[in-house]
Amino acid sequence: MYWKPEIEILPRAQLHTLQIQRLQESLARAAQSPYYGTLFRKQGIRPESIRTIDDVRRLPFTTKDDLRSNFPYGFLTVPKQGAVRLHCSSGTTGNPTVIFHDNHDLASWADLVARSLYCAGLRDTDVFQNICGYGLFTGGLGFQYGAERLGALVIPAAAGNTRRQIKLMQDFGTTAIHTIPSYLFRLHSAFVELGLDPQRDTSLRLFVIGAEPHTEAQRQRIEALFGVRAFNSYGLSEMNGPGVAFECEHQNGLHVWEDAFLTEIIDPDTLQPVPDGEEGELVFTTLDRHAMPLIRYRTRDLTRFIPGECPCGRTHRRLDRISGRTDDMFIIKGCNVFPMQIEKVLMRFAEVGTDYVIELETIDGNDEITVKIELQKAWFTGDIEALEKLSRRIANEVRDEILVTPGVRLVEPGSLPKSEGKAVRVIDCRKS
Amino acid sequence: MYWKPEIEILPRAQLHTLQIQRLQESLARAAQSPYYGTLFRKQGIRPESIRTIDDVRRLPFTTKDDLRSNFPYGFLTVPKQGAVRLHCSSGTTGNPTVIFHDNHDLASWADLVARSLYCAGLRDTDVFQNICGYGLFTGGLGFQYGAERLGALVIPAAAGNTRRQIKLMQDFGTTAIHTIPSYLFRLHSAFVELGLDPQRDTSLRLFVIGAEPHTEAQRQRIEALFGVRAFNSYGLSEMNGPGVAFECEHQNGLHVWEDAFLTEIIDPDTLQPVPDGEEGELVFTTLDRHAMPLIRYRTRDLTRFIPGECPCGRTHRRLDRISGRTDDMFIIKGCNVFPMQIEKVLMRFAEVGTDYVIELETIDGNDEITVKIELQKAWFTGDIEALEKLSRRIANEVRDEILVTPGVRLVEPGSLPKSEGKAVRVIDCRKS
Ligand SMILES: [Zn+2]
Ligand SMILES: [Zn+2]
Repeated sequence: MYWKPEIEILPRAQLHTLQIQRLQESLARAAQSPYYGTLFRKQGIRPESIRTIDDVRRLPFTTKDDLRSNFPYGFLTVPKQGAVRLHCSSGTTGNPTVIFHDNHDLASWADLVARSLYCAGLRDTDVFQNICGYGLFTGGLGFQYGAERLGALVIPAAAGNTRRQIKLMQDFGTTAIHTIPSYLFRLHSAFVELGLDPQRDTSLRLFVIGAEPHTEAQRQRIEALFGVRAFNSYGLSEMNGPGVAFECEHQNGLHVWEDAFLTEIIDPDTLQPVPDGEEGELVFTTLDRHAMPLIRYRTRDLTRFIPGECPCGRTHRRLDRISGRTDDMFIIKGCNVFPMQIEKVLMRFAEVGTDYVIELETIDGNDEITVKIELQKAWFTGDIEALEKLSRRIANEVRDEILVTPGVRLVEPGSLPKSEGKAVRVIDCRKS
Repeated sequence: MYWKPEIEILPRAQLHTLQIQRLQESLARAAQSPYYGTLFRKQGIRPESIRTIDDVRRLPFTTKDDLRSNFPYGFLTVPKQGAVRLHCSSGTTGNPTVIFHDNHDLASWADLVARSLYCAGLRDTDVFQNICGYGLFTGGLGFQYGAERLGALVIPAAAGNTRRQIKLMQDFGTTAIHTIPSYLFRLHSAFVELGLDPQRDTSLRLFVIGAEPHTEAQRQRIEALFGVRAFNSYGLSEMNGPGVAFECEHQNGLHVWEDAFLTEIIDPDTLQPVPDGEEGELVFTTLDRHAMPLIRYRTRDLTRFIPGECPCGRTHRRLDRISGRTDDMFIIKGCNVFPMQIEKVLMRFAEVGTDYVIELETIDGNDEITVKIELQKAWFTGDIEALEKLSRRIANEVRDEILVTPGVRLVEPGSLPKSEGKAVRVIDCRKS
């Protein structure tokens, strides 16, 4: 069962033909923008000279800095009056990154989100509660338009006010939720405080989670806590927002919609493609965006293609979950560390709760790393000896992963500061 | 110039024919809902027996209490799976009021908002910054869909963060803003604090204001402050939200879209129509809503039809600005008072600033009314005698209007508490 079978199960040879055709169209459109127009002329790039998928490697990369330096209209292929929506990153200083959409783009985006939600199992009989920021953040409007297009009953719940979210779920029999994974833990605590059991007292059957990096173990904890399957969503505002790649019922990686996004994985240092199945930086070229096509956009997200075919029959390749971002990486005592590596270790411990934070400090001129970890309520006992033993076990396993021994501080459940939006995982207080 | 000339300048005889036809369809649809189905059967109401506009008086009224008592699905004409959006009022206790929309309803709503914005002068060449809450509040998504349909470039700015709002205006050359009137005063203060002049430093040319009662004098203050024309918008979530009635370029009342809303003005006590041009309670019957038609819905908003034709050529009648709500009214010393009566008096004084609050208290067993008023900066001097004189003048003029003499306390600009959303104008601390 597919939302758009003629695209989703298109044999790869035909998918390639479609990609080439759309790539040429996108390049021709991009050439209308001041930025690519100049660049293509300078580099002698002509859309019709791109004849195979591999030819894409002859095209220049685009980075977030390019977007910022050509703010606000440098990438627009139409007069700004031709656009009907913009989304931009926050911040009151410096140039944000902004993406413009015309009517075609909004329809195309809504269709991609509908396809993605359908792929994860959402149907027009579902009640879909969209718990995330609206406005300039792409998750709100992105999922709103997509879920409406799919035909679900959409509750534009927005973020915050957990008791009210629960009341909405109960009042309207919500069956599906989109939110960030860390919020689901907070939501579960609120159910418990109210003396409610989500499995008994709601009709929840499907979660869509994204916009925040998380491990497989965290997903499984969410699923166990609620008795609800949780599907990973991947997107970024430069590629519209949600609707770039999504898990299907097999939860074995995220199908990336290759009719809309030409997808490469490159070595972030050499900028060459990595061997198939190896990890690298995700690079996208939009294939169906009119107002603001982007060519070989470097996402800074790290992942790999999962080899082989998916039993669901979709021919679009699967991305592994994002293992980190090139700019999340920090260097401590000469070792490159991604926060996700540490999370992966922590999640192996049943004693560990839902929140942790990694602190980097300079102490006596040396850089030190400390991981503060909330324990599960049941494990936060007065047994100091047991806690010390646990700390040592965690420190050892983290060291095996990142090659540096961290300080470990086990803290009471609920004692780490909670952020309103995405969880803050790294606090870097080092003197530069 | 009209958005939908075939409807907007339709001769009234034809408009009536259209209304009758749509009223019959709406009644037939309403009869599919549990609530109206039962009610119509009990009262022997058959859609085809409604043959003239006056026949509408034979139909029952619907109130907010009816909506609440039949929460959540009592008014739905389709299975809930047929709806694709709901909006509901806030609150974590008691039944909210909820309105469901199907795809037809969302398209019809977007079209009404596009028509309204066009009527106020918005064009597809405008950059439209929508400064209001998104999510369940109808202003966000309502104006978003409508302005996109019109083809303007929409910035889904949402509410809050005034500096960022100003940065968006400057970055993208915002020409039009929708927001609540009290926010525009806050916005202007922020411009001043930043050393900016909105007339010199922005491209603003059009404001759309609504969702908060305000006087003509307040509108004129806004227009003078920014050098930008401000157009009144009227809507309520039970009638979708924005897009019910809107001012045209003549700013002489709000054209109510009579092809979509059959509009009556009744005496709230006798429930009979008031003579033409007299004030009463607004009552609407939806004529183009499928999932959840409402019949003779009592808005509790007080206004009147403005007699005569509008020079713009639109044949849809004009409503006067809302003078109050039947449930805003308070009784003090036996007199019925609407907060707007007091605001109207205050706005006559050049010395009075943008914020005021009406406090009701019981002192020594007597009900007392005090009006706390922020003065303009220039007038807040140490000249106590002048301030006392001003207080007395204000108290006298308010007494002439409401027949009760209020206490008047003049306070420093910025000293009254600011609410995040709509301004709170009445604080009733009386012992009941
Ligand atoms: Zn699959
Ligand atoms: Zn007019």
